[in-house]
Amino acid sequence: MQKSLVISMKTKAHVLFSGGKDSSLSALLLEPFFDVRLVTCNFGILKTGPVAEDIAKELGFSHQILCPDIEILKTAAKTAKTDGFPNNAINYVHRQVLSLLAQNDEVSMIADGLRRDDRVPHVPLPEIQSFEDKNKVLYCSPLMGFGRAAINKMIESNLVITEEESAVLLKCDYEAELREYLYQDIGEEATHKLFPKSHKQSRVISRIRNE
Amino acid sequence: MQKSLVISMKTKAHVLFSGGKDSSLSALLLEPFFDVRLVTCNFGILKTGPVAEDIAKELGFSHQILCPDIEILKTAAKTAKTDGFPNNAINYVHRQVLSLLAQNDEVSMIADGLRRDDRVPHVPLPEIQSFEDKNKVLYCSPLMGFGRAAINKMIESNLVITEEESAVLLKCDYEAELREYLYQDIGEEATHKLFPKSHKQSRVISRIRNE
Repeated sequence: MQKSLVISMKTKAHVLFSGGKDSSLSALLLEPFFDVRLVTCNFGILKTGPVAEDIAKELGFSHQILCPDIEILKTAAKTAKTDGFPNNAINYVHRQVLSLLAQNDEVSMIADGLRRDDRVPHVPLPEIQSFEDKNKVLYCSPLMGFGRAAINKMIESNLVITEEESAVLLKCDYEAELREYLYQDIGEEATHKLFPKSHKQSRVISRIRNE
Repeated sequence: MQKSLVISMKTKAHVLFSGGKDSSLSALLLEPFFDVRLVTCNFGILKTGPVAEDIAKELGFSHQILCPDIEILKTAAKTAKTDGFPNNAINYVHRQVLSLLAQNDEVSMIADGLRRDDRVPHVPLPEIQSFEDKNKVLYCSPLMGFGRAAINKMIESNLVITEEESAVLLKCDYEAELREYLYQDIGEEATHKLFPKSHKQSRVISRIRNE
C-alpha cells in the first residue's frame, strides 16, 4: 500500500526511445526516480512502431508512438542534401520532436539518450534553458555525464544487445527514416555520400534482471 | 548465490563525496550499476571525515577518506587571493584530487557530483578524455545531464536534506576547508570578499527507502 502510493507520486518522464542501447539505458537510469514512459517517433516511412513497442515491453516500460508531420522529415532531407552531411538535419529533427512532445499537456519531463561524446544531436545549455522555460517542461539527458566505456559497463550487466549494420537492423530512430526517405528521394548511392554506408547499429534483445 | 555473484562482478565506482545532496544523488544513480565507494577529501583543516562517514553509513555505502597534501590547499588559497574570487582555486583543487585518486591502483572509475548548471568545478571534454587516457581510469559526472529542478525531484523522493548557511553547517568539501584556511590566513572579512558570506549548503540527514 505504502509502496504503490510512493510509485504513483513519481513524476512522469517521457524518454525518447529508439530501441537502441543508449535510450534503453537512459530509461533504466531514470527508473528508480521517475514513472518512465517510452516514446518512439515515427514519420510513417518505416514500420518502426511495433519493433520499438516489443522492446519497450521487454524492458518493462509503457510505450507510445509520436507521429510528427512528414514535412519535418522533408525539410531535414533538404538540409542534408544542401549540406552534404546529415548533422544539421538530425539536429533539426531532434529539436522539432522535442518541441512537439513538450506541447503535450501530459508531458512535464522529457529525456533523451544523448551521450557526452555525441556530436549530434547536440543541444547547447542556453538552448536547453530556453526550451525548458518556454515550454514549462524539464529536459534531461541521463547519459550526458558518461563516456562510452562507462556506458558499456552499465549496459553489459543490464541489457543483451545485438549489433548489426544499419542496412540489416531496423533501428527505430529518425536517422533510419531520414535515410530511407533519401533512398526513395535520391537513390542509395547519393544517400551514401551523405550518410556513411557502413554504420553499426545496436538494438536491445532483452533485459537482464538481477533480482 | 546467483545474486551475490552478479554483485561481486560489478565495477567499483569511487564517488567524491561531500555529504551534500549532489554527491549523494550521484551515488544513488550509480548504485544499480556499480559497486559504489564514497571518498571524502580532507586536508586536516576541518574535522569533516567523521561527519561524512556518518552520512555514508546512513546512505548504505562504504566510505574512505583521502588526505591530499596540504600544499594543494595552500596553492589554491594563494590563487584565490590573487584572483579575488575562488573559481580557479576550486578548479585547481578538484583536478589535483582527481589525479591523486586516479593514482590508486584500486580505482578504475571516478565519479563526482558536478551538475549541468555548475560553473565550478568544470572539466571540459578534451581534458576529461586526456585525464582518462593518461590515468587509465574512467571518469563520470552522473548529474551532468540534469538541471536543478529535475535533480530536486530525484532528491525529494530519496533523501531528507537540511539546508543552512555555510557558517552553520559543516560541509565536507574542499570549499569548506579552503574557506577555513583563508579565515586563519587573512581573516574573516578579507575571506568574505573572495567567498560570499551568505551561501546555503545542503547536507543529507537520511535516505528514504521505498522498498
